[in-house]
Amino acid sequence: MSTNLASQLSLNHGGRILLAVMDGVGDIPIPEFGGLTPLEKAETPNLDKLALGGALGQQFPVGRGITPGSGPGHLALFGYDPVKYLVGRGALAALGIGFQLQHGDLAARINFCSLGDGEVILDRRAGRISTELCTELVEALKHITIPGVEVFVEPVKEHRACVIFRGAGLSESIHDTDPGLVGEKPLPVTATAPGAERAVEVVRQFIGKASLILKDKTPANGLLLRGFALHEALPTLTDRFKLKPAAVALYPMYRGVASLAGMAQYQSDPADLTGEIQAAKNALKDGKDFVFLHHKYTDSSGEDGDHKRKVAEIEKFDKAVPGLLECGFDVICITGDHSTPCPMKLHSWHPVPVLIHGGPQRTGWSRRFTEREAASGALGTFQGYELMSLLLAAAGRLAKFGA
Amino acid sequence: MSTNLASQLSLNHGGRILLAVMDGVGDIPIPEFGGLTPLEKAETPNLDKLALGGALGQQFPVGRGITPGSGPGHLALFGYDPVKYLVGRGALAALGIGFQLQHGDLAARINFCSLGDGEVILDRRAGRISTELCTELVEALKHITIPGVEVFVEPVKEHRACVIFRGAGLSESIHDTDPGLVGEKPLPVTATAPGAERAVEVVRQFIGKASLILKDKTPANGLLLRGFALHEALPTLTDRFKLKPAAVALYPMYRGVASLAGMAQYQSDPADLTGEIQAAKNALKDGKDFVFLHHKYTDSSGEDGDHKRKVAEIEKFDKAVPGLLECGFDVICITGDHSTPCPMKLHSWHPVPVLIHGGPQRTGWSRRFTEREAASGALGTFQGYELMSLLLAAAGRLAKFGA
Repeated sequence: MSTNLASQLSLNHGGRILLAVMDGVGDIPIPEFGGLTPLEKAETPNLDKLALGGALGQQFPVGRGITPGSGPGHLALFGYDPVKYLVGRGALAALGIGFQLQHGDLAARINFCSLGDGEVILDRRAGRISTELCTELVEALKHITIPGVEVFVEPVKEHRACVIFRGAGLSESIHDTDPGLVGEKPLPVTATAPGAERAVEVVRQFIGKASLILKDKTPANGLLLRGFALHEALPTLTDRFKLKPAAVALYPMYRGVASLAGMAQYQSDPADLTGEIQAAKNALKDGKDFVFLHHKYTDSSGEDGDHKRKVAEIEKFDKAVPGLLECGFDVICITGDHSTPCPMKLHSWHPVPVLIHGGPQRTGWSRRFTEREAASGALGTFQGYELMSLLLAAAGRLAKFGA
Repeated sequence: MSTNLASQLSLNHGGRILLAVMDGVGDIPIPEFGGLTPLEKAETPNLDKLALGGALGQQFPVGRGITPGSGPGHLALFGYDPVKYLVGRGALAALGIGFQLQHGDLAARINFCSLGDGEVILDRRAGRISTELCTELVEALKHITIPGVEVFVEPVKEHRACVIFRGAGLSESIHDTDPGLVGEKPLPVTATAPGAERAVEVVRQFIGKASLILKDKTPANGLLLRGFALHEALPTLTDRFKLKPAAVALYPMYRGVASLAGMAQYQSDPADLTGEIQAAKNALKDGKDFVFLHHKYTDSSGEDGDHKRKVAEIEKFDKAVPGLLECGFDVICITGDHSTPCPMKLHSWHPVPVLIHGGPQRTGWSRRFTEREAASGALGTFQGYELMSLLLAAAGRLAKFGA
């Protein structure tokens, strides 16, 4: 089912919803834990109580067998079908560093590279220069001006940066200038479809001016552009579900995706779960009725393959649950944006457990918040983007369909 | 989710996949077995081990409540949505007898019939003549030539045969000539849509010449044509998922459907599971990375209502499992193309158990390969055509979606 129906039935009143995301929380059996997953191994008395008093299920962020990036994983949780609402890699790179993209912005990824005689590429990553050097080079490029557009250049990490062009009439129909091979020259800027003349002209000017600035900066004396993406504003959660949404997240990437959905940003002080809970309270005080709260470290420990640390991060989140309950939300949902199994050290396609507490639920079916309990929980198995309908329903924010 | 996304994300490297199909394996409780199904009744120590070390789920080949024919059931397992990828009955009849259809071939089913005075149909099945007589009549019809097209006539069974026209400009927009009633004349050949003039002319010539040949052959002195289907080549598993696929099947029908998906055919010698395992090994030796292996007799025993024989066929397959494991596949999937419950003696709409062994899985949830365990397995309940995504994911053959 698409969320269009939920959108049509949305009411502008009802309960207040917390969507708490333990990033990458889903996992697979860990041999060192005797076949238990980190969620099964962790001691989680508070989550256990929520599970018993709420309802569990499991969601596929994108589809069966599909491993989601963080962008699609979160868009799904916010009620967007991530296959329909595609966000380009250039745009995600910009969002990932906290750059507030506007509708019509053209974003691209920059790789600093090493060029030899005759402009031939010697190293597509300029020997993976330090982030410090990257930042220095970016400072120099920030002086570039192009008539009729604003140009923003931002460092990302090591040899990676990004550029955003803001102005009328831009297009993303532009070939990467990265040939993908050493021993070749950077490709000229060309259009992949008609109507991109203005964008091609802007990007050519940028590369021309940047090349002059970089030409003596060994080893990063050139640049390659790829992943051109024109940012199209998404309909917000206010447009779609009549919500007043807020985001509490420590990392720019997640703030970026939340801003796509039209969420107001709330700062956490201190930068931990205590600060995040206080930020959620502040959002409610301001009249917000939907808060997305992000806990990163379950994912990081999974990516590191550190199952013991993942257990510790789950237990840390568990200790924060009473604070979350005190905020005064009517509906609390706990889930992840994808699974990050420790044995894989990667995002995966495995379904993600979901817990909804609050509103009328088929309670008492599940005793713990685990993958296995979730698979046989009262909410069943569903697509990630369907979660929003369940949350709105629990909060009494959806009208009846038909008479 | 459609499989288009899996297609876009497919990698041309990764693990080797075995899709072993126990035809019609799903069943319902058998009273004589105290309410156990054949899978529950059978002793299957090898499948039990695979279940514990893998993950189970259940799939609907077409949709809830829909009983699939063998064509759609297998297409779904190969990753084609059988509602989208329709294969006409004429084409399936041709495939079913092992005829290698080419793109643009026009196939139709033939019924030999008995005609009386004034060409009126007395029996639409000519008293169900023997297959031997059918083959004799077909031999006579093979002499028919029509300028500009190749004509192939093949016997099927009893009064049923099929005809294939190969040539440019054919169309399937042709009315059946079978009026569906005795006491009526065969219908004239007419088009159901514009653009079928050439096909109408070809079919008229064929029927004219065939009628002359048959007119004294009591009781089968006439013929009726129906199910006109123009064969359109499907995108292959190589096109869609970058696989090098092979098929090991003893029956022409399954080889036919496999050839639609672009699978290379491997012969089994001897024509049993031992030979099939050897053929699978040969395919791997040739560099194939996807093998479809078909076991027919679970279906035949179900169609006969012989639950004891179905148990025996399941146990025979179980004994072949160690041989399958030795082949060196990275991912092994065991499932059926549909259920064939013994009490029904027919294909049915009941979901089909699926077992995936290999790759990162939520193992340890299921102790046996049965309908009941499958319904609460870690893979959940899904559409048949989604299985391919799960197999590609398990084999590490799908890239991440989005950043």
